Amino acid sequence: MLLRQYSPVIVIFAEIRKDMITSTTLSQRVQDALASAIFPENPANMYDPIRYILTLKGKQIRPVLVLMGAELFGIQNIEHAIPASLAIEYFHNFSLIHDDIMDKAPLRRGRQTVHEKWNDNVAILSGDGLLVKAYEQLARCPKAHLSELLTTFNKVATEVCEGQQLDMDFESLASVTDEQYIHMITLKTSVLLGGALKLGAIIADAPVAQQQLIYDFGVYVGVAFQLQDDILDVYGDPETFGKQVGGDIMSNKKTFLLIKLLENANDEDVRSIQHLIASDMQQVPNKVQLMKDLYAKYNIKALANEKKAQFTSLAFDTLAKIDVSEDRKQQLYHLAGELLNRIR
Amino acid sequence: MLLRQYSPVIVIFAEIRKDMITSTTLSQRVQDALASAIFPENPANMYDPIRYILTLKGKQIRPVLVLMGAELFGIQNIEHAIPASLAIEYFHNFSLIHDDIMDKAPLRRGRQTVHEKWNDNVAILSGDGLLVKAYEQLARCPKAHLSELLTTFNKVATEVCEGQQLDMDFESLASVTDEQYIHMITLKTSVLLGGALKLGAIIADAPVAQQQLIYDFGVYVGVAFQLQDDILDVYGDPETFGKQVGGDIMSNKKTFLLIKLLENANDEDVRSIQHLIASDMQQVPNKVQLMKDLYAKYNIKALANEKKAQFTSLAFDTLAKIDVSEDRKQQLYHLAGELLNRIR
Repeated sequence: MLLRQYSPVIVIFAEIRKDMITSTTLSQRVQDALASAIFPENPANMYDPIRYILTLKGKQIRPVLVLMGAELFGIQNIEHAIPASLAIEYFHNFSLIHDDIMDKAPLRRGRQTVHEKWNDNVAILSGDGLLVKAYEQLARCPKAHLSELLTTFNKVATEVCEGQQLDMDFESLASVTDEQYIHMITLKTSVLLGGALKLGAIIADAPVAQQQLIYDFGVYVGVAFQLQDDILDVYGDPETFGKQVGGDIMSNKKTFLLIKLLENANDEDVRSIQHLIASDMQQVPNKVQLMKDLYAKYNIKALANEKKAQFTSLAFDTLAKIDVSEDRKQQLYHLAGELLNRIR
Repeated sequence: MLLRQYSPVIVIFAEIRKDMITSTTLSQRVQDALASAIFPENPANMYDPIRYILTLKGKQIRPVLVLMGAELFGIQNIEHAIPASLAIEYFHNFSLIHDDIMDKAPLRRGRQTVHEKWNDNVAILSGDGLLVKAYEQLARCPKAHLSELLTTFNKVATEVCEGQQLDMDFESLASVTDEQYIHMITLKTSVLLGGALKLGAIIADAPVAQQQLIYDFGVYVGVAFQLQDDILDVYGDPETFGKQVGGDIMSNKKTFLLIKLLENANDEDVRSIQHLIASDMQQVPNKVQLMKDLYAKYNIKALANEKKAQFTSLAFDTLAKIDVSEDRKQQLYHLAGELLNRIR
């Protein structure tokens, strides 16, 4: 029954995917707000990196989610949700600056990372400064909701830090279960999507149970999206994926696919996998293809797609339960469809 | 006239300095609150460093200042100020963890720094987590004051980050003026003392003008304290100073003393100073003594003591102006006396 509720919408996604206009107004409003935010000139080594990362325009999904959460519950004046929207975007960019130091990542959105362009110290401190700027935006939110907003934001922020720590811990663990992996990506990436929606819902005076539903929807979408990212890293179209296809295999990243492969492979294949992991691309130039062959042997892509589908269903079931008219939900259906149906 | 107002108090300090009992109750209350704060067990690499730094007991002056600010303005129930007090202590320790990475400091309060005991990544992330925990404590503050508290806290937090950036920037500048230096230490260390007092004042419902006075008092005390620290680093008693006497000279730190020396020295002596700065302790084993000789030649200690006295006077003048009975101010007079009259 629930399936029937959202399956027509999925058909709509397929039709409108290539020429998405949903939420361009909200997206534009976020861009305007970001463009009009002014940071001090000095100290330049603290504020230049902040200006820099905020202009490496990402998809800006998270700040738009704040506004969508508010519109879903019928906010009268969307301007009241702008500071929370900026808070979420600043927080996200703070976490990118610090994660990139920890991951020693040279590039972000095709440009130099902050610690590469400046240095680690500048990246640590400008990240700290940007996190505080996120809280400055929270302080500008409607006072009646400030306590709830701050509590929600803090919980999400703590969980994102915990998720990043678990991700780093996993790199040195011999084995990780798929439950542990889902828990990690939930914290590291998904709660921020749920939290963004919930901030909007709070500002729009949504009842607590409804806040929880929209939060859960965001978390489920986030998990499905991350699983899709793991799949696309191996099977994506190099023309459109945006990252290097095969990158996770080259860097031995413990993705859902690798975890499932290690769980399912026979002893001999486990030894092959471990040999591949111990080898770099110079030693085994066809490392990516060899791993893909193993994925094929154990049907790993199907397992990952199945798990993605589970979370997608959970997301749409949860959205269906929210007590507002269906037309109010359209832009969230559209956005989720866009996120979860990108280049298969 | 203002001098007459506080000079008797200074006499009292001299008498009670060795056996200070003022504020032991508040100090105990802070210790109890810190001891009863519980952090999650996992991820251990995120929370163990937080537990670790919070048990490297410092003087805990800042959280006590929050309570003193609240008592100054007659708070009825001091428990209402405890979360803000913890927020300040957590923030301070967050800044220590990150500053120690940036300064590559091996030791803090005689124990290994977090990045030394674990690694840089753990220190970055546990610092981030502790900063969020500071905001969690803020979220527990009385709701009626939350907006004001958050705004005040954010301003202080931003300035502390700016101060740390300026401090790092100064290391590579050819010359720094004493005004620039005072501005830097104001941001890096003093505004947190003023901010701590102001949070207490806000919670105790102090009028805005009074909040500003107690904030200014804290900032002036902080500047005087930092100038004293610069002096003690050269002239302190190795038995009681707590840090290595001469440490700033060995590491070429741009202290108030070095800045004033460079400003006052003749061309020949400036060349000698620059030679000393370019030399390490192996090349010039008596580097500390040679620099002290130059300080003596130009009366630098007296200049620094004079500047410290200026800020001490400003502090006491400002405290005198606060519109509460003199007996309420006693513990702040005592604390400032204790801070600013330590082992000359």
